[in-house]
Amino acid sequence: MVEPATDTIAATRLVPLLKDELDIVIPTIRNLDFLEMWRPFFEPYHLIIVQDGDPSKVIKVPEGFDYELYNRNDINRILGPKASCISFKDSACRCFGYMVSKKKYIFTIDDDCFIFMLCCVFRDGFDLLCDLGFLDFGSVCVICADKSVAKDPSGKAINALEQHIKNILSPSTPFFFNTLYDPYRDGADFVRGYPFSLREGAPTAVSHGLWLNIPDYDAPTQLVKPLERNTRYVDAVLTIPKGTLFPMCGMNLCFDRDLIGPAMYFGLMGDGQPIGRYDDMWAGWCTKVICDHLGLGVKTGLPYIYHSKASNPFVNLKKEYKGIFWQEEIIPFFQAATLSKDCTSVQKCYIELSKQVKEKLGKVDPYFDKLADAMVTWIEAWDELNPSGASATVSNGKA
Amino acid sequence: MVEPATDTIAATRLVPLLKDELDIVIPTIRNLDFLEMWRPFFEPYHLIIVQDGDPSKVIKVPEGFDYELYNRNDINRILGPKASCISFKDSACRCFGYMVSKKKYIFTIDDDCFIFMLCCVFRDGFDLLCDLGFLDFGSVCVICADKSVAKDPSGKAINALEQHIKNILSPSTPFFFNTLYDPYRDGADFVRGYPFSLREGAPTAVSHGLWLNIPDYDAPTQLVKPLERNTRYVDAVLTIPKGTLFPMCGMNLCFDRDLIGPAMYFGLMGDGQPIGRYDDMWAGWCTKVICDHLGLGVKTGLPYIYHSKASNPFVNLKKEYKGIFWQEEIIPFFQAATLSKDCTSVQKCYIELSKQVKEKLGKVDPYFDKLADAMVTWIEAWDELNPSGASATVSNGKA
Repeated sequence: MVEPATDTIAATRLVPLLKDELDIVIPTIRNLDFLEMWRPFFEPYHLIIVQDGDPSKVIKVPEGFDYELYNRNDINRILGPKASCISFKDSACRCFGYMVSKKKYIFTIDDDCFIFMLCCVFRDGFDLLCDLGFLDFGSVCVICADKSVAKDPSGKAINALEQHIKNILSPSTPFFFNTLYDPYRDGADFVRGYPFSLREGAPTAVSHGLWLNIPDYDAPTQLVKPLERNTRYVDAVLTIPKGTLFPMCGMNLCFDRDLIGPAMYFGLMGDGQPIGRYDDMWAGWCTKVICDHLGLGVKTGLPYIYHSKASNPFVNLKKEYKGIFWQEEIIPFFQAATLSKDCTSVQKCYIELSKQVKEKLGKVDPYFDKLADAMVTWIEAWDELNPSGASATVSNGKA
Repeated sequence: MVEPATDTIAATRLVPLLKDELDIVIPTIRNLDFLEMWRPFFEPYHLIIVQDGDPSKVIKVPEGFDYELYNRNDINRILGPKASCISFKDSACRCFGYMVSKKKYIFTIDDDCFIFMLCCVFRDGFDLLCDLGFLDFGSVCVICADKSVAKDPSGKAINALEQHIKNILSPSTPFFFNTLYDPYRDGADFVRGYPFSLREGAPTAVSHGLWLNIPDYDAPTQLVKPLERNTRYVDAVLTIPKGTLFPMCGMNLCFDRDLIGPAMYFGLMGDGQPIGRYDDMWAGWCTKVICDHLGLGVKTGLPYIYHSKASNPFVNLKKEYKGIFWQEEIIPFFQAATLSKDCTSVQKCYIELSKQVKEKLGKVDPYFDKLADAMVTWIEAWDELNPSGASATVSNGKA
């Protein structure tokens, strides 16, 4: 059942989609050896590397990649006093990369996320691969020796970036649920009872990819289930309905910068802040509320990446513990948030949201006062670096 | 990769879940030979067969099944003048079975839906099976000869009813989306950022299963894509979020009669009515609005059944065409519908909804006046046949 392995040369022969319209943003504190695994897929694209932590440390990037790298000194120099809105010693700094990009699309990924290289997965044993139906025992050695990209259960090579691009270039269906999932996918459509007036869909602003192996659990769940691994490959992409919030993970994420970029602020985390590991969650909540207001779609599901290692649950607990109780108030706040009709651009929505954060969450903790101010600073900095985008207006979609 | 086939004897050895608490409701116009395929799974349960159409026709039920059968004469005798709310010459008559059941759970299925008997699927060729990863060529004959139940891609035997029962007995998550799908499933959990206060979930009222082979398309889509087949097995169960409507198909459906039964009215369709094929959709819209109001969950996804044949698209078009434009007004109506705090039982919700249907949809077509009246008659008949349930109160869930 397993097809002959595709080698990396074959992979590079694929036409890279949106080559001149997409930047890959990577936050890191270490040498980027992980890029070797992604080489066939990432090499055609421009990388924006945001160095998290000590700027004197030299980050090595494998040869052949086209990249720009920003450390803290660069961020301070470029943004001046507005650099205060960019987190330090936390991967939340990645959003600086979104701001300096000049492309329409962003793909962001963590440096401990791997493509399904069989030789890599192989180290963790046969079980995962067999559970996923990726291989039969007869073909392991050949595949491993070839260092080929792995297969989804139907035998196709997994190209995470290509799947994100497909997701983002096809419409979303936020206004009504389609039970056969993505109706725009080959072999699928809208089912009986789906209103025809909604079949045009809405523009897709965000594609949220998932993770095999180490699931994205919070510290308490990590502590309780240290051995749990995600081995279920769910072959679906679906739109998160309008009015529904979700936990957006920044590990494997793609978005349309023109449509939603200014909402992708990863907040104040890490050094000097009372909280960590809520950077992507914060961005996700704000983004979803704004997408709902502007009639834009958010998809989740494929592609999976292979998440190689769990972060330390004790360290995570320290970062998360305030967030764990704050989120009990933050989520009802975002669920109830509405934006006025005047909010016709992402920037206007975001500024309006920052006021509501100050007013309603400021009572929860002074941290939210500071965060609300940083949200405003972020928009000011965004508009400074993206002068034409500052006045970009997105028309309201259907509701 | 394919496991040795499980034979039907092995299947009957499974302990039938909820044996004394679940009825299987089947609307039909023909002999129920299809039950032979389901024998290992359905034989332990009680069947309620609702004969659709000419009551003088004798419907043959294979030996060994425990069943009661109602034809139109029975319905008229039992309900008297209230029988007017039960559709004639349309599978919408199945809801009479929900009313006369005395069990807590209902599973309803169409008589052209098959279990994944490999010998059955086999007739339609190798391709589907191979696409689904169900077999390799070496093992076909053995499996076919054994007439075994088929496998999902991980090699487990598919027992649709068992999966529905699992869905309905575990909570739903309507208030926040979990990106790893059903958090209660083995090997899954709530992801980082999911509020702990919502992890208890909500009681599940409905489990909506899907279909491989012939997808549930409307007549226009059938006409445009006559050859499209659903071959994608998506290994997921998910909760339809609160506030989101979906097209509920009655082909492969399970629900908790105590929690939501009186909302499962399949409307006025078929003989003497201007519309058909919207019976399950109507029930789905009403059910979802009421579940949202009462804090109950609705799941969709697994289990799949094998839907053997497409109905005639020309006949379907005739039945559907009014529905196709009416749904453009019906869906915004249900999306905007809210129920008052006094609506503390399904019956009260349903009566309130019938008033809104009369007031708001009556303008669309006089049919909705008649339907609103039938909704009231349905509840009166339900309460007459289920006197203790008439006063049953469901407490409001979280919102």
